[in-house]
Amino acid sequence: MITIYGERHRLHHGRSELIDGELKPCFETPRRVDIVHERLRQVGLGEVIAPSRFGIDALNRVHSDAYLDFLQTAWQEWSALGRTHDALPTIWPARGLRRDRAPLSIDGKLGFYAMDAGAPITSGTWDAIEESAHVALTGAQCVSRGERAAFALCRPPGHHAGRDVMGGYCYLNNAAIAAEHWLAHGARRVAILDVDYHHGNGTQSIFYERDDVLFVSLHADPSIDYPYLLGYAEETGRGAGQGFNFNYPLPWGTDWSTYAVALAHAGEQIEQFAPDALVVSLGVDTFEGDPISQFRLTSKDYPRIGAAIAQFGLPTLFVMEGGYAVEEIGLNAVGVLTGFEAHTQVAAR
Amino acid sequence: MITIYGERHRLHHGRSELIDGELKPCFETPRRVDIVHERLRQVGLGEVIAPSRFGIDALNRVHSDAYLDFLQTAWQEWSALGRTHDALPTIWPARGLRRDRAPLSIDGKLGFYAMDAGAPITSGTWDAIEESAHVALTGAQCVSRGERAAFALCRPPGHHAGRDVMGGYCYLNNAAIAAEHWLAHGARRVAILDVDYHHGNGTQSIFYERDDVLFVSLHADPSIDYPYLLGYAEETGRGAGQGFNFNYPLPWGTDWSTYAVALAHAGEQIEQFAPDALVVSLGVDTFEGDPISQFRLTSKDYPRIGAAIAQFGLPTLFVMEGGYAVEEIGLNAVGVLTGFEAHTQVAAR
Repeated sequence: MITIYGERHRLHHGRSELIDGELKPCFETPRRVDIVHERLRQVGLGEVIAPSRFGIDALNRVHSDAYLDFLQTAWQEWSALGRTHDALPTIWPARGLRRDRAPLSIDGKLGFYAMDAGAPITSGTWDAIEESAHVALTGAQCVSRGERAAFALCRPPGHHAGRDVMGGYCYLNNAAIAAEHWLAHGARRVAILDVDYHHGNGTQSIFYERDDVLFVSLHADPSIDYPYLLGYAEETGRGAGQGFNFNYPLPWGTDWSTYAVALAHAGEQIEQFAPDALVVSLGVDTFEGDPISQFRLTSKDYPRIGAAIAQFGLPTLFVMEGGYAVEEIGLNAVGVLTGFEAHTQVAAR
Repeated sequence: MITIYGERHRLHHGRSELIDGELKPCFETPRRVDIVHERLRQVGLGEVIAPSRFGIDALNRVHSDAYLDFLQTAWQEWSALGRTHDALPTIWPARGLRRDRAPLSIDGKLGFYAMDAGAPITSGTWDAIEESAHVALTGAQCVSRGERAAFALCRPPGHHAGRDVMGGYCYLNNAAIAAEHWLAHGARRVAILDVDYHHGNGTQSIFYERDDVLFVSLHADPSIDYPYLLGYAEETGRGAGQGFNFNYPLPWGTDWSTYAVALAHAGEQIEQFAPDALVVSLGVDTFEGDPISQFRLTSKDYPRIGAAIAQFGLPTLFVMEGGYAVEEIGLNAVGVLTGFEAHTQVAAR
C-alpha cells in the first residue's frame, strides 16, 4: 500500500489544551506520526511518497472562504498583540449567542470559529494543516489513478473540523476534503467510515444533508465522552441526507466482541450504499492503553478491523486521525493496514 | 438608599480563567464588593441589610430546572473525579453541534451550559450565586414595598448568564430575576438599563421575545470586544419582543461626551416604554483605569450617570455587575448611587 507523508506537520506543535480545568501539554504531538512512519518502514508496507500541492479550491469544497482566511491569518493577528502563548479562544457561540456574524478582532474570531480550547493555533499551524490536507488529497489522487488503497499519514487530524469550525486538534477536515476530491473527479457516491474513538462530528455536520456521501461512525457514547454534543444514534441525516448518516455509540469498556458487532452493522450500511470509493477515518484511540479513551481494543484487534474493511472490496483511502498511546500508535495503525492488505491478497488469490 | 449585602459571596473565589491563551487569576474577586461596601459606609449612603431567603421558584422564573440542577451538582460531580482545580468546560455547542441535548457526564455538561472558560465552578459557587440572586430579590422586594431605590450589592454578577448558560463570571442573572420578581408581584412592564462595559447578552437573550421587559444596553462594540457574539445595534427583539431591545455599541476610547449622547438616547427609549420600575445593571468597568476594558469614563462621570437615571423618576433597583479596577470600584459604583440620590433630592425639593 502506498503511503503519503510530509514533514511539515512538525511546524504545528501545540503547547497546551484545556482539560480537567487545567492547561495541559497537548496529547496530539509530532511524535505520533514519527512512530507510525517508522512502523511502516519496519513492516515494509510499501512506497512512501511526498504530498503534491493543490490549490485552495480543493479545500474550499469543504471549508468556507472566511474560515480559511481566519486559519491563515490567526497567528499573525494574535502575535501582533504581543502574545506568545498558543492562540486559544475565550468565548464561544453557545445558546443565546449569534452563530451568524463573525467578530472582527482575533479573540472574537477564535471563539466564533472554535468548538473547544483543544485546537491551539501556533506560528506553524497553517503550513502544517495545509500540508495535512494535501497529504489526504494526494492519497485520494493515488486511488483515483488506480491504486486499490492508499494511506494518508495526516497530521494534524481532521474529523472534528466542520465547514467553519475547528476543535479537538482538528482544523481542516482531511477525510471530507478527500471525499469531495473524488466527487469532483467522477465519483458519484463516497462512503466515509470513521473508526476513531471520538465521534467525527465535523465530518457528520459537513455531509448531514447530502445523499452522495454516506457517513458511518463507531465511537464512544457522546452522552459520556467527547465531543458530547453530537454522535447519537438518532442522528440519521436531514433533508436529502436523511438515511445517509449512521452513528454507533458504544459504551466505555467496549472490547472486540462488542466492537465487531457494530463494525458488521456499519459494513452492511456501506455495502447497501454501494459507493464508488471509501474513506476510512483511521483513529486508533480505541486502544486499551490510550490515555484519554475508554475502549479495550488490543493490538491484535487492529488487523481484524483492516480485514473487515477489505471485505467491502472498495477503492479505499485511509486517513490518519487520532490515537494518543504514542508508543503503540504505529503497531496499531499499521496493523489495520496490514490486516487490510492480507485480506485483499487472500481475496485476490 | 438602602443596600442589600451578604457575606456568602466569599464562598466563590475562582482561581483562574482562560484569557490570552493562558489561565490567569480571575479578575472577578471577593475584594471587589468589600471595597464597594466600605465606600458605602464612608459616604453614609444608608442602611445596609442582609438578604432574605427566597424559594427556588424565584430563580426558576428565569432559569431552567436542568440548569439549576447542574449548577447545584457540578462541583460535586467534578470533584468526585478527583479533580481539585476549578471546573472549566472543555467543549461547547458551536455551529454543527447540538444545542438541544445535554450530555450526562460533568465535562459534557460544563460545555453544554457554558459560553466561555471565564466562569469557573468551585466548591462554594452555588452558595454564593444563590445568595447573590437573593440579594437582588431582596432589593426588588424593598422597592416593591415603597423604597424609591435600592442597591443590590450582588456578587457574582449576572448579566452574561442566559436561561441555561453561564459565562463571563456570571451564573444566575440577578437583574433578570429581580425583573421577573416584580412582574410576578404586580408590575406590568419593567425596563432594564445595562451600563456595564460588556453587553448584557444573557439579559437580552432571556427577554428577546418579550414585550413586557425592555432591555437597553450601552457597551463596547461586540465586533471588537467581549462577548463578541451578541450586542449589535441591529438586534431589536423578535416576535412579540420586536422593538423592545436596544443596543448602543460604542467604540474603544469612548469618553463622557460620547457616552452621554448614547445614555440620552437610551433614556428616551425607557421614557417612551413607560415602565412601572427600572433595574440598572450597574457595571463600572467603563472606567478609564479598568484593566480589561477600553472606555475612558472618569470617576466624576459616575454621579452624572446616576443623575441621568434619577431623571426617569422610576422606582429603581441597582444591581452590581462588573468593574475590575478594584481600588476605584467603590468610588465609581457608589458615585452612581450618590449622583442618583442627589438628583432625586433636588427634584423632590
